[in-house]
Amino acid sequence: QVDGDRLWQSLMEMAKIGATEKGGVCRLALTDLDKAGRDLFVSWCKEAGCSVSVDKMGNIFARRPGRNEDMPPVMTGSHLDTQPTGGKFDGVYGVLAGLEVIRSLNDHRIETEAPVEVAVWTNEEGSRFAPAMVASGVFAGAFDLEYGLSRADLDGKTMGEELARIGYAGDREVGGRPIKAFFEAHIEQGPILEAEEKTIGVVTGAQGQRWYEITLTGQEAHAGPTPMKVRKDALVGAARIVGEVNRIGLAHQPYACATVGLMQVSPNSRNTIPGKVFFAVDFRHPDADTLAQMDSELRAFCDKVTAEIGVEMAFEQIWYSPPVAFDPDCVNAVRKGAKLAGFGHMDIVSGAGHDACYINRVAPTGMIFVPCENGISHNEVENATSADIAAGCNVLLHAVLERANA
Amino acid sequence: QVDGDRLWQSLMEMAKIGATEKGGVCRLALTDLDKAGRDLFVSWCKEAGCSVSVDKMGNIFARRPGRNEDMPPVMTGSHLDTQPTGGKFDGVYGVLAGLEVIRSLNDHRIETEAPVEVAVWTNEEGSRFAPAMVASGVFAGAFDLEYGLSRADLDGKTMGEELARIGYAGDREVGGRPIKAFFEAHIEQGPILEAEEKTIGVVTGAQGQRWYEITLTGQEAHAGPTPMKVRKDALVGAARIVGEVNRIGLAHQPYACATVGLMQVSPNSRNTIPGKVFFAVDFRHPDADTLAQMDSELRAFCDKVTAEIGVEMAFEQIWYSPPVAFDPDCVNAVRKGAKLAGFGHMDIVSGAGHDACYINRVAPTGMIFVPCENGISHNEVENATSADIAAGCNVLLHAVLERANA
Ligand SMILES: NC(=O)NCCC(=O)O
Ligand SMILES: NC(=O)NCCC(=O)O
Repeated sequence: QVDGDRLWQSLMEMAKIGATEKGGVCRLALTDLDKAGRDLFVSWCKEAGCSVSVDKMGNIFARRPGRNEDMPPVMTGSHLDTQPTGGKFDGVYGVLAGLEVIRSLNDHRIETEAPVEVAVWTNEEGSRFAPAMVASGVFAGAFDLEYGLSRADLDGKTMGEELARIGYAGDREVGGRPIKAFFEAHIEQGPILEAEEKTIGVVTGAQGQRWYEITLTGQEAHAGPTPMKVRKDALVGAARIVGEVNRIGLAHQPYACATVGLMQVSPNSRNTIPGKVFFAVDFRHPDADTLAQMDSELRAFCDKVTAEIGVEMAFEQIWYSPPVAFDPDCVNAVRKGAKLAGFGHMDIVSGAGHDACYINRVAPTGMIFVPCENGISHNEVENATSADIAAGCNVLLHAVLERANA
Repeated sequence: QVDGDRLWQSLMEMAKIGATEKGGVCRLALTDLDKAGRDLFVSWCKEAGCSVSVDKMGNIFARRPGRNEDMPPVMTGSHLDTQPTGGKFDGVYGVLAGLEVIRSLNDHRIETEAPVEVAVWTNEEGSRFAPAMVASGVFAGAFDLEYGLSRADLDGKTMGEELARIGYAGDREVGGRPIKAFFEAHIEQGPILEAEEKTIGVVTGAQGQRWYEITLTGQEAHAGPTPMKVRKDALVGAARIVGEVNRIGLAHQPYACATVGLMQVSPNSRNTIPGKVFFAVDFRHPDADTLAQMDSELRAFCDKVTAEIGVEMAFEQIWYSPPVAFDPDCVNAVRKGAKLAGFGHMDIVSGAGHDACYINRVAPTGMIFVPCENGISHNEVENATSADIAAGCNVLLHAVLERANA
């Protein structure tokens, strides 16, 4: 049994770092606030007797030794970075649940066969630096190190520069070592567990994602004396594509999601026809073929509309994260943990991407979901109950123990 | 006859202040660059023997005495601020053409009955601070001083603060004094003169404008696990309104213009459904009734789409500038000047707003247009020929002399 109160208190303590007026958290990857959150986590891990190492992508590993130090570790963890309108639980829950597992093992003086590690993965959100899960991706060999370090934010600052600036450019090689199993606890970020009144989501996999960057270039001109017919209005083109993205999402129900979350208009002046619009598209579907169909529809529409409006287009799919199926043994360990503790549970497919999706490529992996209020995440009102938070952590403890002693 | 080379050289000298890589000028209202432009203009006016005063809206008046100092002045001028993607001519041409008139009068030792003043109106563009022509509007009594000084940019800085900061918060009262006549020379900023192969546009009036600010508030949520059907995506709503604005413009051809130039998406993160979008609409038409009809169509559509999508809307018309007819005597003075000099000319209605539109409320007013390349303005490639630039200034000289000696 973990100490649910202690876990909750640690979550609330961490939520002060980057706390927003509306009760959320804004702690963007590799900002000073991210550094403060990392420092706090590291200090807690050291208090819990862990040794701490940092790799070249800034991933942090806190290690509790096992009886058999030659065994690969059982690893758990998630991320400390948030969205601009982030909440108190997305990511940080999985990190502090891992810490609570270690604290509980200490309390009960339980030795494990394999070492146990808690990981903090850098820039999971993909908000400041695209794509998401980039550092767990490097760890798992999905990206090379150079790619990871060169990801830049909208101001042109790279992850490499910012890691060095905040003192988290570690010297450990990224990945390339065996892991016995990886578990990630996370809030669901969707409405299903709440609707089905289940405490635990036994995550069997995650849907696929495609991310795009599109730049339309038309011609700046005066909004007053420039006749409608000679205009090359990049925003008129972008608006039509936003509408099409939404149509594609609706056309592939029940599972598809399709979103334009980011848009920058230039020169962004009320009485100048927009000469340039940069925006990003996020497509999701659990089935790779449907996701490919959504891709074709988007490309066809963009070609058509840009020709009609007479604007130039730069179109790039910047990220593809294929649908993921987690390891059956790890999934079973989660299901067994939920059963043993008597928690209502159900199998579920993750709508969000998670570091676990990449780690699954190099280690047997499973995930544990707990409900969040009204299914809302990436929003400052994101919320979860302390009972559910503790329940997920108890299931994590069970799964970690089972794999560490197997 | 004015000195066309000197005028061109002064234009090129001023264009260095805020020069952009693409050959344009970015000299936003009340920035340090605007101050540098003002300082240069003031120094040139003093060299030309003018006395210079500044009013509480930062409008600058350079005065060349008349034989009869009790007579109200004949005034000419325009603005020194530019769009973010501005050119070398929009506004500054009218200011430096005024200065060239004074320099030419000096060269030829011509005394005028009435004094001649060159005015620089603050923040004509309406790009950094909305609405446009706000300081000539205060001068003409269209806005009160408090309104003018409290206009804020997107960072919340007010015109009053920024005037004080750059040292152009003058102590002279704004307006309230008689003006014998006002003339403004300007590039056309549209394609008509070039298409008709005319050197001079005799501006008979200007079309009306309505500017709006619209904020849609939906709900931030995760782009992955949030089903399409429960979303309140503010950008999907805004995109539909951008499409409708464009449709309204096309539906009221041949004259209507309709533009969304400014849009800000929050939180502007690729994988968060936009919770808030702020954008501005610019409607134009020479006929007030048609403009009112465009207004009704926009309101009806916005009500419908926000109800459909389930987002909240704050909708405000922030500016109405009614269609303007200039003073027949001033228009005639311009036409006569063009005729006497033998320039091809035609009557034209301005598609853009100009300080002259407000000054027309308190003084007999006329405007002179010269062609610009491909009709392009509010774009760094904005261009005009030195021959046309000199021609417009010669017509201005004629019109000023006629009214100053009448
Ligand atoms: N869990 C989470 O919010 N991940 C961010 C990456 C994504 O958008 O799926
Ligand atoms: N001349 C000019 O560009 N004025 C700006 C105000 C407007 O948009 O009409």
